[in-house]
Amino acid sequence: MAERIYLYDSTLRDGAQAQGIDFSVADKQAIAAALDAFGIDYIEGGWPGANPTDDAFFGALPKTKTAKISAFGMTRRAGRSASNDPGLQDLLAVNTPTVCLVGKSWDWQVETALKVSTSENLRMISDSLAHIRANGREAVFDAEHFFDGYKANPTYAIEALKAAHEGGANWLVLCDTNGGSMPSEVYRIVSAVKAALPDANLGIHCHNDTEQAVANSLAAVEAGVRQVQGCINGIGERCGNANLIAIIPTLMLKMGYDTGLTPEQLTHIGELSRLVDDRLNRAPNRHAAYVGSSAFAHKGGLHVSAMNKDSRSYEHIDPALVGNSRLILVSDKAGRSNIVNRLHQMGIEVADDDDHIGELVKAVKEREALGYAYEDASASFELMARERLGQLPRYYELQSYRALNEYRLDAKGRAFDVAEATVKLVVKGEQVMSVAEGNGPVNALDAALRKALTPHYPQLNAMHLNDYKVRILTPSDATAALTRVMIESRDDQGRTWNTLGVSHNVIDASYNALYDAITYHLLKAGV
Amino acid sequence: MAERIYLYDSTLRDGAQAQGIDFSVADKQAIAAALDAFGIDYIEGGWPGANPTDDAFFGALPKTKTAKISAFGMTRRAGRSASNDPGLQDLLAVNTPTVCLVGKSWDWQVETALKVSTSENLRMISDSLAHIRANGREAVFDAEHFFDGYKANPTYAIEALKAAHEGGANWLVLCDTNGGSMPSEVYRIVSAVKAALPDANLGIHCHNDTEQAVANSLAAVEAGVRQVQGCINGIGERCGNANLIAIIPTLMLKMGYDTGLTPEQLTHIGELSRLVDDRLNRAPNRHAAYVGSSAFAHKGGLHVSAMNKDSRSYEHIDPALVGNSRLILVSDKAGRSNIVNRLHQMGIEVADDDDHIGELVKAVKEREALGYAYEDASASFELMARERLGQLPRYYELQSYRALNEYRLDAKGRAFDVAEATVKLVVKGEQVMSVAEGNGPVNALDAALRKALTPHYPQLNAMHLNDYKVRILTPSDATAALTRVMIESRDDQGRTWNTLGVSHNVIDASYNALYDAITYHLLKAGV
Repeated sequence: MAERIYLYDSTLRDGAQAQGIDFSVADKQAIAAALDAFGIDYIEGGWPGANPTDDAFFGALPKTKTAKISAFGMTRRAGRSASNDPGLQDLLAVNTPTVCLVGKSWDWQVETALKVSTSENLRMISDSLAHIRANGREAVFDAEHFFDGYKANPTYAIEALKAAHEGGANWLVLCDTNGGSMPSEVYRIVSAVKAALPDANLGIHCHNDTEQAVANSLAAVEAGVRQVQGCINGIGERCGNANLIAIIPTLMLKMGYDTGLTPEQLTHIGELSRLVDDRLNRAPNRHAAYVGSSAFAHKGGLHVSAMNKDSRSYEHIDPALVGNSRLILVSDKAGRSNIVNRLHQMGIEVADDDDHIGELVKAVKEREALGYAYEDASASFELMARERLGQLPRYYELQSYRALNEYRLDAKGRAFDVAEATVKLVVKGEQVMSVAEGNGPVNALDAALRKALTPHYPQLNAMHLNDYKVRILTPSDATAALTRVMIESRDDQGRTWNTLGVSHNVIDASYNALYDAITYHLLKAGV
Repeated sequence: MAERIYLYDSTLRDGAQAQGIDFSVADKQAIAAALDAFGIDYIEGGWPGANPTDDAFFGALPKTKTAKISAFGMTRRAGRSASNDPGLQDLLAVNTPTVCLVGKSWDWQVETALKVSTSENLRMISDSLAHIRANGREAVFDAEHFFDGYKANPTYAIEALKAAHEGGANWLVLCDTNGGSMPSEVYRIVSAVKAALPDANLGIHCHNDTEQAVANSLAAVEAGVRQVQGCINGIGERCGNANLIAIIPTLMLKMGYDTGLTPEQLTHIGELSRLVDDRLNRAPNRHAAYVGSSAFAHKGGLHVSAMNKDSRSYEHIDPALVGNSRLILVSDKAGRSNIVNRLHQMGIEVADDDDHIGELVKAVKEREALGYAYEDASASFELMARERLGQLPRYYELQSYRALNEYRLDAKGRAFDVAEATVKLVVKGEQVMSVAEGNGPVNALDAALRKALTPHYPQLNAMHLNDYKVRILTPSDATAALTRVMIESRDDQGRTWNTLGVSHNVIDASYNALYDAITYHLLKAGV
């Protein structure tokens, strides 16, 4: 039996420390749901009491299938009891199964930054962890600056771990807080900790300041650590945290560990990676290990002919193991079977040799080259497929729209702005015009469309917009760039669907995404 | 005396294998000049005879101060002599001081891909390297697939190295061609090679398929390798080559090796990194180890107050050693000390107890609660601060703007859309109106503003938009949500600045971000 390594994701807590990262509550909920669906063991959701977003997240704890939600905080303050510490009270109040407390293990930090005695710091650690355990929670101790602390004073660093262990901590996590350690150092120091605390469960938490966070995490596993903390896509402060997306396949495929994930679950790791990028409105890194779109791409002519002889020539693993695919060998046949599988999953009847399949493969390739991304907008994909297969009704015909946005000063010199849209449609043979205002041109257009359509399709009253995202696909052209709009809609039963539009014009891209959202809703409502 | 590690850059050869990379001859010359100026030992310029760009580069060899230019090729074909091999003739014809030959060291590859006998392959290696040496060149042998070959058949892999060594190769470079090896394996295998060939000079060439190319390269150095091959910014096929920009500072600052670079030269490493990104027309990775703009950025308030006590709290090295600097981020987690630090960094004179500081902290918190994110838009932050401190000129007054977007069918039933914007401004006491079209309302508004302002401020000709990003901040309201627009601008000297606008209306948010971009540019231009 392979040994079990536990995966602890800190995307929503330490990842959120990064410059440019600003998760909303909805982002946090969506990422937590994806982490749970993928099969991560622990989801660190944030720091209760630290900011309104984290409070809202913990205020409505997501129901998970298998993952444990962890709340992060710090050991009690000096000079008060754990049960009277407001921070620990906040942490316990949110009722997560797991609580992670950070505490200091570098004597110099204790004296300089914390300004308490080294012995009081040890009591703060053991009291706080004991208090968490006494309240029936699983307790994780993050030993901040552990490697720097160990290098400066190994005795004290080990004492800090022992204090947590004696307090009852379930996990002692060794943190390379400044990210400056080398894999050989991590291996040596973890081995020493393992010898000093043979019955403790150890974890590792690395930062990427020398581009070695993945290697440091794996060196720690080789030395005996059994919990790995990290973030999706390696996001995090400065140079980022250890990248779980790179660590997980190596643990399973190269080192032979059990991560609790089945081989089938591992094939969804690219989707998890892209979901986080989408929430951050970032383009995925196509050179990312295992999941990047170029990770198994072959350009050199020599490589390609060798690849055709045997893929081991230039591939370290079979890309299918991580749900990825070889770029040069994406034959029409492979593309075809993918598309047929997807259509069947959507309940669309189609023969394997239907002539339309080839056209559809071609259309998807052309559109994805333009910047469409159907894997994130399956409603738009389904509509495009149904249209080509002659299975899509047209609920209305657009004749024209106009969106106007005006800013001016009123008679008293106060600025005001107004957005107004008009639409002209043919619905069920009848020409309809309507006009509406909104908080901007897209909102006004949405309102005008609904005003024109709802009398004919009252089902639209049950359709709501959940999310609206804009991404510029060719940033070097700046405001003249190609724009991709993705819309997430939901109905009264809470079902959601995603549609997209791509255009040089953000209004036009938005209209196309709105059109698909409306069409999909009416189709699923059986109209 | 510290031991010497030789740096071998393959950006222009193996780096150019990556998807999306297409260096011109001018790019290659500029990058070679920058590598030489920085102090890299070897510059692999390409593969003579492989394509017109490489031929043009080698046809006019750059004069270098200290770097040796290396020409890349492969061992002679089977069944002919080295002196009659056209590939080797091409290689020698370009007259570089150094020649690098790739050859096979994995017996399975020899038989499957090359389809020659394992003994002929050994002769191909030794003959070819002897021929290069006989022509007075330094000879480097790249042992392709060395680690996979060693794992499959260690005896043959070592025989391949011995053939090159006996042929007179100056360097035996062990290649992890598929990028799938682990640092502990690399250490073990390099140690075995070192024992088998104690008097050979060894090198390492790694790929990043498990995000461990840097760690693998450094593990090889720990095991005795003295030449490191890699690429600037880790560019290269699939997941990239080992990143020299991360490797060099670690070799010097953490491992104590001599790379031939002085401490002063090391401070220019970020410039080298950015020059390659510029040539590739890519935005630099701000999370890059050592050189990224976020590599020493601090956001959390706790971190910042600890940093002010001692920078070792959250920095693994002094950023000045690599020519980088500490970045204190303004965010809702920030307090007074963050803001004062930030103002001082911007060169704004303000006393620590200035009354305006408190107002500014309050304003930042209020605006960030609304969705502004100043940590990513320091130009907008600076403008807000200067405005509150009475240090900001107003370059024009907006009276009104209108943006119109129209979609309709023409007489032939073809759809077309047009975006038009008008602006009315007062500039230097004069009222100006202008109108322009664009690829969407924001692009049209940008064009109309420039048309109105440029006659008064010709400096705006030197301002360009680099990137335009839209983010919806309260997705539950969907298209009626609050919208945040961030704009990155650049001037003709390549300086970039980021500004933002937040509004319920995407057009209004875009206008505000454009306004800040223009104001900041004019301010910095001394207008």
